[in-house]
Amino acid sequence: MLIHELSTAECHEVLHRSHLGRLACCRDDHPYVVPISFDFDGEHLYSFSTLGQKIVWMRENPHVCVEVSDIVDRFHWTTVLVFGRYEELRSPDEHERARERARGFFEQRDEWWQPAAAKAGPIEHHVPLVYRIVITRVSGRRADRPPL
Amino acid sequence: MLIHELSTAECHEVLHRSHLGRLACCRDDHPYVVPISFDFDGEHLYSFSTLGQKIVWMRENPHVCVEVSDIVDRFHWTTVLVFGRYEELRSPDEHERARERARGFFEQRDEWWQPAAAKAGPIEHHVPLVYRIVITRVSGRRADRPPL
Repeated sequence: MLIHELSTAECHEVLHRSHLGRLACCRDDHPYVVPISFDFDGEHLYSFSTLGQKIVWMRENPHVCVEVSDIVDRFHWTTVLVFGRYEELRSPDEHERARERARGFFEQRDEWWQPAAAKAGPIEHHVPLVYRIVITRVSGRRADRPPL
Repeated sequence: MLIHELSTAECHEVLHRSHLGRLACCRDDHPYVVPISFDFDGEHLYSFSTLGQKIVWMRENPHVCVEVSDIVDRFHWTTVLVFGRYEELRSPDEHERARERARGFFEQRDEWWQPAAAKAGPIEHHVPLVYRIVITRVSGRRADRPPL
């Protein structure tokens, strides 16, 4: 099996064509990882969520790692890791353009607000909030198996 | 969309039939998440790896979270989260039975030592080490969409 390191441009290609990742955050030395759907605009990852554990944790500790992979089998896979910082797009003034951009991405997909908004819980937890990951570093690997 | 919480037995079913998960660990308030392959024996998750960042980090902070999911589309998915503790199976005396059990699982698959052993690096980093996740808690959710 041959494993190649990906260039930043190749990592970005993967992020452009993918919409599913695993977001890890941590608090008090305990990690937490959940699937997220996201859109990459060439600079940040945009996503949304209702208020739950990951949002509470990321508000406290904004360091995150997002794993995005395309795994065909154990010999053919691509994995990209994004290291960055959680940024909630709350302030209408400060983040208006970013929120608009995020909304534009999500609305291209039917019922974009699901499943983030489908959780049970108090009604105020149903309002989806928009956030982005400010990327500080990406790395990636691709594995291929040469023909026998 | 309907979202159901899974029972512990249902979570275990998912872990039994899955072999791919995302393992998150953390150090100094920074999370790290990577794909792993694993086998579940009904009690622990067994896996192996060459010496790399995740092993170095888990030796320092053994708290981990493993996400295992089966995502058909955004309306049909099952996700299980395993919270637990990294335990390296190093000591031949203490862990002989656990290592044998792990090896038995892995040898059922062709070339089980790939891709964990295919990394570039110093030769001592090529020796795969065996570890298990001692599970302290599992939780899971399943989403279905009722017929229209």
